[in-house]
Amino acid sequence: MIKTNKPNLHEGIYSGYEKSSIVIFGVPFDGTVSNKPGARFGPRAIRQEIDSIETYSPYQSKDMQQFKFCDLDDCAVSFGNTQRVLDTVKADVSSILKDGKKIIALGGEHLISLPVIEAFAAKYADLQVLHFDAHTDLRHEYLGEKLSHATVMRRVCEKIKSDNLWQFGIRSGTKEEFEFAEQNTHICKYDLKGLGQAIDSIGKKPVYVSVDLDILDPSVLCGTGTPEPGGIDFKQLLDGLLGLNKLNIVGADIVELAPHYDQSGASTAAACKILREILLLMS
Amino acid sequence: MIKTNKPNLHEGIYSGYEKSSIVIFGVPFDGTVSNKPGARFGPRAIRQEIDSIETYSPYQSKDMQQFKFCDLDDCAVSFGNTQRVLDTVKADVSSILKDGKKIIALGGEHLISLPVIEAFAAKYADLQVLHFDAHTDLRHEYLGEKLSHATVMRRVCEKIKSDNLWQFGIRSGTKEEFEFAEQNTHICKYDLKGLGQAIDSIGKKPVYVSVDLDILDPSVLCGTGTPEPGGIDFKQLLDGLLGLNKLNIVGADIVELAPHYDQSGASTAAACKILREILLLMS
Amino acid sequence: MIKTNKPNLHEGIYSGYEKSSIVIFGVPFDGTVSNKPGARFGPRAIRQEIDSIETYSPYQSKDMQQFKFCDLDDCAVSFGNTQRVLDTVKADVSSILKDGKKIIALGGEHLISLPVIEAFAAKYADLQVLHFDAHTDLRHEYLGEKLSHATVMRRVCEKIKSDNLWQFGIRSGTKEEFEFAEQNTHICKYDLKGLGQAIDSIGKKPVYVSVDLDILDPSVLCGTGTPEPGGIDFKQLLDGLLGLNKLNIVGADIVELAPHYDQSGASTAAACKILREILLLMS
Amino acid sequence: MIKTNKPNLHEGIYSGYEKSSIVIFGVPFDGTVSNKPGARFGPRAIRQEIDSIETYSPYQSKDMQQFKFCDLDDCAVSFGNTQRVLDTVKADVSSILKDGKKIIALGGEHLISLPVIEAFAAKYADLQVLHFDAHTDLRHEYLGEKLSHATVMRRVCEKIKSDNLWQFGIRSGTKEEFEFAEQNTHICKYDLKGLGQAIDSIGKKPVYVSVDLDILDPSVLCGTGTPEPGGIDFKQLLDGLLGLNKLNIVGADIVELAPHYDQSGASTAAACKILREILLLMS
Amino acid sequence: MIKTNKPNLHEGIYSGYEKSSIVIFGVPFDGTVSNKPGARFGPRAIRQEIDSIETYSPYQSKDMQQFKFCDLDDCAVSFGNTQRVLDTVKADVSSILKDGKKIIALGGEHLISLPVIEAFAAKYADLQVLHFDAHTDLRHEYLGEKLSHATVMRRVCEKIKSDNLWQFGIRSGTKEEFEFAEQNTHICKYDLKGLGQAIDSIGKKPVYVSVDLDILDPSVLCGTGTPEPGGIDFKQLLDGLLGLNKLNIVGADIVELAPHYDQSGASTAAACKILREILLLMS
Amino acid sequence: MIKTNKPNLHEGIYSGYEKSSIVIFGVPFDGTVSNKPGARFGPRAIRQEIDSIETYSPYQSKDMQQFKFCDLDDCAVSFGNTQRVLDTVKADVSSILKDGKKIIALGGEHLISLPVIEAFAAKYADLQVLHFDAHTDLRHEYLGEKLSHATVMRRVCEKIKSDNLWQFGIRSGTKEEFEFAEQNTHICKYDLKGLGQAIDSIGKKPVYVSVDLDILDPSVLCGTGTPEPGGIDFKQLLDGLLGLNKLNIVGADIVELAPHYDQSGASTAAACKILREILLLMS
Repeated sequence: MIKTNKPNLHEGIYSGYEKSSIVIFGVPFDGTVSNKPGARFGPRAIRQEIDSIETYSPYQSKDMQQFKFCDLDDCAVSFGNTQRVLDTVKADVSSILKDGKKIIALGGEHLISLPVIEAFAAKYADLQVLHFDAHTDLRHEYLGEKLSHATVMRRVCEKIKSDNLWQFGIRSGTKEEFEFAEQNTHICKYDLKGLGQAIDSIGKKPVYVSVDLDILDPSVLCGTGTPEPGGIDFKQLLDGLLGLNKLNIVGADIVELAPHYDQSGASTAAACKILREILLLMS
Repeated sequence: MIKTNKPNLHEGIYSGYEKSSIVIFGVPFDGTVSNKPGARFGPRAIRQEIDSIETYSPYQSKDMQQFKFCDLDDCAVSFGNTQRVLDTVKADVSSILKDGKKIIALGGEHLISLPVIEAFAAKYADLQVLHFDAHTDLRHEYLGEKLSHATVMRRVCEKIKSDNLWQFGIRSGTKEEFEFAEQNTHICKYDLKGLGQAIDSIGKKPVYVSVDLDILDPSVLCGTGTPEPGGIDFKQLLDGLLGLNKLNIVGADIVELAPHYDQSGASTAAACKILREILLLMS
Repeated sequence: MIKTNKPNLHEGIYSGYEKSSIVIFGVPFDGTVSNKPGARFGPRAIRQEIDSIETYSPYQSKDMQQFKFCDLDDCAVSFGNTQRVLDTVKADVSSILKDGKKIIALGGEHLISLPVIEAFAAKYADLQVLHFDAHTDLRHEYLGEKLSHATVMRRVCEKIKSDNLWQFGIRSGTKEEFEFAEQNTHICKYDLKGLGQAIDSIGKKPVYVSVDLDILDPSVLCGTGTPEPGGIDFKQLLDGLLGLNKLNIVGADIVELAPHYDQSGASTAAACKILREILLLMS
Repeated sequence: MIKTNKPNLHEGIYSGYEKSSIVIFGVPFDGTVSNKPGARFGPRAIRQEIDSIETYSPYQSKDMQQFKFCDLDDCAVSFGNTQRVLDTVKADVSSILKDGKKIIALGGEHLISLPVIEAFAAKYADLQVLHFDAHTDLRHEYLGEKLSHATVMRRVCEKIKSDNLWQFGIRSGTKEEFEFAEQNTHICKYDLKGLGQAIDSIGKKPVYVSVDLDILDPSVLCGTGTPEPGGIDFKQLLDGLLGLNKLNIVGADIVELAPHYDQSGASTAAACKILREILLLMS
Repeated sequence: MIKTNKPNLHEGIYSGYEKSSIVIFGVPFDGTVSNKPGARFGPRAIRQEIDSIETYSPYQSKDMQQFKFCDLDDCAVSFGNTQRVLDTVKADVSSILKDGKKIIALGGEHLISLPVIEAFAAKYADLQVLHFDAHTDLRHEYLGEKLSHATVMRRVCEKIKSDNLWQFGIRSGTKEEFEFAEQNTHICKYDLKGLGQAIDSIGKKPVYVSVDLDILDPSVLCGTGTPEPGGIDFKQLLDGLLGLNKLNIVGADIVELAPHYDQSGASTAAACKILREILLLMS
Repeated sequence: MIKTNKPNLHEGIYSGYEKSSIVIFGVPFDGTVSNKPGARFGPRAIRQEIDSIETYSPYQSKDMQQFKFCDLDDCAVSFGNTQRVLDTVKADVSSILKDGKKIIALGGEHLISLPVIEAFAAKYADLQVLHFDAHTDLRHEYLGEKLSHATVMRRVCEKIKSDNLWQFGIRSGTKEEFEFAEQNTHICKYDLKGLGQAIDSIGKKPVYVSVDLDILDPSVLCGTGTPEPGGIDFKQLLDGLLGLNKLNIVGADIVELAPHYDQSGASTAAACKILREILLLMS
C-alpha cells in the first residue's frame, strides 16, 4: 500500500515530540540579508536531501536510528517584519526548552541565532557560544539596523558575556570588528587552531554551537549568500566538530545554506552531513 | 508554537484518506526513459511548489479548500526492476479503487500510466482514455523492450479497445506509429482541435485523463526529458482541460515533469496549476 | 585613452539631472517577498544589460538618443526594515516631483510601488493607476503584515480612489481578492481586453503605469519570484503599452524582475525593452 | 559487439560524400560576437542532440532515412583571425559546390553566412537570399570592423544585388539600418507576413535560406547570444519554412545557436527540428 | 577541405582496433541509480571534452600520441532491463579480452563494473580489484534488488575472492556494510593511506582498477549522482593512481560521472584527466 | 536623496585619476580563446561583485580606503580584430605609465597581458614577470596564429629576456612547451614551491605579476574557460601573493575569469579578493 504522509526526514527513524530528547526545527527567514538572499530555502533543502545520506556515521560509529529525536518543521515567518520573527522564534525555543529538550535550529540567515541564543541564555546562566563562521558578525549596526545578519554576534555579546563567545574560522570583517573581537571575544582567525584549548577551558559548562556554513571554503559550499574564499575544508570542520564530543552541547544551529546558488546539490549534502554529525554528537 | 509535521500540500486543506473522494499519489519512476532522466523528481517538486500557488481557481471559480482529498505520498519504487514497479502501482491503485475513490497519479515517466490504467480498466469496462502528449507512444517495442515510455499507449491499446483511446497534440513519432494511430486510435495531430467532438462522442462514459506535460511547447515547460518544439501553449491546454467539465472523469495522471532541466521553476509551477485544475474538475 | 567612469546606461545618451525631463532610479528591495526573493537584483541587471539592446525602437520610430533623461542609480535600502525603505523612497520621489520631472522606478518587489504612488497621489489629485500584473495584490494583510507585495494594490486603494485603479492580466488571487476587485476596482482578468475602453475613460487625467513583469507568461519571463503560467506574451504586452501613447503618463514602475531565476538573460532583455518603450512613450 | 565509431548524426542514415546530394557541415566560429559568445558550440550541440528527435517529419510526411546526405563535421577555425576563417569556409564551400551538392552550414555566428553566400553567388548569378532574423545585420561597420555579425547582410548586399535580399522577422536595428533596408532590400518587420508574396516573386530562381535562430522569440530559443523579445514562435517559423517547398533551395544555413545559455536543451531541440525540416525541404 | 567524420577523441591519435593494445568503450547505463540519475551521459561528456586537455602528461612524462589505443564508442543499452544490459556488456568485454586487449570502460553507474569484472575474472583466476569509491557498495540487496549500484562490490565479492578486493576512500555505508568490509575485504576508510602496502602485497598479480569518481570530494567533482562531502582532492587521487605504475593493470573503469549536475564542466575535465593518466599507466 | 552615478567599485573609496597612484582598468577581450569563451565578462563581474567583499584585509591589516586608486573602466575592444585590440591596450598602458602610475589590468583572456607587458618592458629595462598559471602558454603558434592565449608567454619571452620569466603552478602543456620552459624560463611545476627562492633572486628589480586565475584548482575557481584539475587552493595562492610584499611590484594583471561558468559567483568572489590583496600589496 502507498505510504501515508511520512515525517520530514528518514522515514521510520523519527520519534514523536514527547519521546524525543532532541528537537529539530527550521527558521526559513532571510529578511536582513544584504547580499544574496535565499537562506529561507535552507531547511526545506536539508529535509529534502537528508534521505540521500546514510543514517550511520562511520566517523562516530553511531546511527541516527539509535536515538530519539523529531523534526517540528518550520516556525511561522512574517516576511517584512524582523522583530516579529525574532519574537516568534524566541517564544518557540523557550517553550521547547521548558520541556527539557535539546534543540537544533536550521536557518535561514544568521540573525535567527539571536532569539535562539536568547532563550538558551535565559535558561543557562553560563552559556558558552561556539561560533563557526567566515565573518565576525560583530558590527554595532549595519545599514542603519541593529538587527542584522552582520550584527548578530554583537547582539549575542549583549546577552551573554562576550568572554563566553568563541569564534573560529573568521576571515572577513571591518577593522573595527576585528579590534572588538580581539578585545572582547575569543577569536581564532582563518581556521580552528585554537579549538582544542577552548574545549579545555570550557569544560562542562553548557555549550551552544552556531555553525554558519560559510566558514567552509566556497569550493566546498558555494550555496550561501556571501561566499568567502579562503575557508576551511569539509574534513577540517568535521574534525573540529568531532572534537566537541567532550562538551556538554545543549543547543546548536546550522545557518546560511542558500541552496539555489549551488545547482549541484553538494552544498546541501554538506549541510545534511553536518546536521547528522551534530545530532549524533548531542545524542 | 512550531508547527507539527504538516501534510505534503497546502496545510490544513487535506482531509484524511477515509473522508477523501480524490486520492493523489506519486510514482517517482523513470527507469525506461531513453533520453534525459529525472521525471522521478516530479512528484517531489510538485509537492514542494504547490504551496506557492493559490488554492482558488479564477477559471473555475472553485477553491481546493471546498473539497475532500488527500495525498498518499509516493509508491515504493525499485530502480532497476521495471516489472516490479508496475506490479506495485497496479496493486496500489486497485486497492484505492475498491474504496470508491477517484485517483490522480503524479509521474514519473509515462510508462507509469500503464498499471494505473490497467487497474481502472479492470473496474470500468468501457474506460475512455484521453491522451494529451507530444508523442504517439505507440511503438510495439523500443530498444528491444515492450515496457517503455515509448510503447505505453500501444500497451494501453491492448488493455482497452484502441477505439477508446483519444490522442491530442501529437507531433512526434515514427511513420509506423502515425499509421497505427490513424488506423486504430483517434488521433488529433499538433493541437486539440478535435477535442470538442471527442467530448460529445464520449458522453457519460468513464474517462481517464493522461497528461504528458511535454504536450506543452518547451517554451512553457522545458523541464521534461524530451522537449518537442511546436507544442501548444499553457492557455490552450488549460482551455482544453476546462472543456472536460462535462465528462465523468474517474482518474487522471500528470507525467514527465523532470524539474532539474528547468532551473527557473516555471515548469513545476505549470504542473501545479494543471494539478489544481484537474483536481477541481474532478471534484 | 581608456574611458573614465561611464554613466550606468548607454554611454553618451544620458543627460544630467538638471536637463532631464525623465528620471530613472532603482529600488533594490525585496524584503516582503514570501516566495522566491531576488528582485533586489533587478535594477542592477537592467543597467548591465541595457547596453545590449538598441536605443532605437522600430515600434515607435523613436530613439532614446533624441530625449533628455538620466539614471540616478539606486535608493539606499535597509534590509530588515520595511517601513524605513518605504519612507526613503517616498521622500526621494517627492523631491524629484517637486523639480517637475517624470519618473520611472525600477524594482525591486511590487511593494516599492506604494511609496512612489503615494508621492504621486500627493501631487496629482486625480491620479489614475494602470496596474499590469498576474496577481490581484489586493489582500488586506498577508502573513500578518499590512505592508507586503501581496497587499500593495489594496494599500494603493487607500491612497487613491479604488475607482481609479485599473487592473489588467490578473490570473491569480484569493476568492476574496477577486470579489474586492469586482466591487471596487476595474479588473480585466487574464489579458488586456478592456484596455482600449480604459484609455478612453481616462482621457487626459494623469496616469501612473505599474508593470509587474509577472503579467508576462513564464515562457517569456521566468526570472521572477512567483511565475504564474497562463500569462500574456511579449507582443501582447508591447501592443498594450504602445496603446497608451494617447495618455498623459507622469510616472511608471517596472517591478519583480528576479534575474537569478533566468540564467539565459532573456527575462532581463524583456525588462530592458519594456523600459525603452515606456521611456519613449513618456518622452 | 560494441559499435565502431559512428557517424555524427543518426547512425545508419548517413550516406558517404559521393552518394550524398546534400552536405552538412559546421563552422564553429563566433569571433566577432559583441554580446554573449558561444555560438561556436552550436554545431556540436546539434550533432549531439539530433539523435533524440525522430527522423520522420509528420509535417512533411517524409523521413530523413529516405534521402542521401552526409555530415562533413566542422571546418577548421583559427580563433583570433576572422579573415582566415572566412577564406577557409569559402574555399570549402566552393569545392563542394563544384561537386554539384546542395549545402547546409551550421553556425557559429551569422558572419559565417558571408563566405558561404559568396561561394554560392559565384555559382548562381541570380541567387536570392531569404534572411530570417531578429536583426537587420545591415550596419556598414560595427565597432570599427567591416566583418562582423552585425554587418553580414550589408556585405551580402555587396555580393548579390540588394534587391535579391528578402528579410523577415526583423525587430531590432539602428534607424539607419531600417532606412537602408527600406530603400534597398525587401524587409518584412516583426513576422513573416510578406513571405507568400516573396515566394511568388522568386519563382524558380536559386534560393539560399539563412536562418538566424534569434528570429524566434527568446521564450522558444533563449540559447543565443542576443535574445530579442517579441519574436515569432516555433510554429510560425515552421509554417514559414514549410511554405518554401515550392522554391528551388540550393543552400541554407542555421546560425547563432549558443547552447550554454539554455540549460534545458530546448533551444538545441528547436535547432535540430529546423535542420530536419530544411533537410527534408531540400531533398 | 572540411574534415571527414573524425574519431571520437583527439583526432589523429587513435589507432584502429586491430593495432590497439588498449580499448576504450562506454556503457551509458544508470538504470539502478536510486538518487540522482544522469551517469548515462558520462561517456558522451568525456568524449566531447577530452579534446580540450593536452595529450601530454607532465606527471608521467608520456604522451597519448605515443601509444596505440582506440575508442569503440558505446555498448547498446536497453533502458528498463538491467539484466540484459549486464549480459551485453559481459559478452562484449569477453570478446575483446579474447583478442588480447586491455580495456577501459567508461560508466555509467557503478553496476556496470560487475559484468566487466566478471569477464576479467573468467580470464584471470587471481584478479585483484582496486576499488576507489566514497561508498562501500557492499549491500546484499538494495530496495529489494540484488543488482544495484549499491550492491555491486558485494556481487564482485561473489565472483572473485573477497580477499582480493581492496577498497579506498570509503566514507559512507551502513553499519552492516562496514562490518562486512572489515571481515571480508581490505578497506581503507576516508583516504588512500593503505595503498602503498596494498601495492606491495599485490605484486605482479593482474589488477583491475575501478574508479568511482565520487571518491573525490564534491568540491572537485560535484557532477555525480550521490556527492559525499569529505572526500579526497584531485592531487591525492592522482598521486594514488600514479603509484600504481608498478602494478600489472589489465583493466579499469571510470564510473559515476553525471555531467548535468556540474554546469561548469570541471567534473568532466577531472574525469578526462583521470582517463588520460590511467591510459598512460596501462601503456 | 538618491545617489548620483557612483563610481564602479566601493563608493567613496575611489580617488580621481590625478591623485591615484594605482590605476585599474579592464580589457574585455576573449577573441583568441579556443576552448570556452566568456572571459570578456570578467571585468564587469568583478566590478559588480567587489562591493560584497570588505575593503579591509585581515591578512595584510590594511584597508583599501587608506589608499589612492581609481578604476578607469574598460578599454574599447574590436571583436574580430586581435591586432587592433592589442594596439589599443598598449597605447593606453603606455600613456598611464608616462603619468607615473602603477597599473592593474583585469582580463579578459591571457593574451591581453602581452600589450600590457610590452608597455612595461619599454619603460623598465629589467622587468621581471611572475607568471601564475595552470598552463605554460609557451607555444610558438597555436592553430596557425602567433597571437593567442596559448602563445602569450612565448611572445613575452621575445619582449623581455626569457630568463626574466618566472612561472608557477604550471600543470598543462605540450612536451615541447615544457622543454622550452626548462631550457629558457624559470618554471615551477604544479605549485609555488620555488617562489621564495625567486623572490630572493629578484630582489629590488621591477616586477610585473600576471595571475591567470586557472592556476587555482577548478574546485576553487570553475568560472574559467579551461579548467585544469590539480591546481593549488585559494590559501596557497594567497600565501604566495602575500610573500611578494618584499618585491617592487609595478604592474599586475588578473585574467581568465569567465563568470558564466560559475553560477554560484564563488569564482568572481575569489577574483575580487585577489584584486584586493594585490592592490594592497602594491599600495
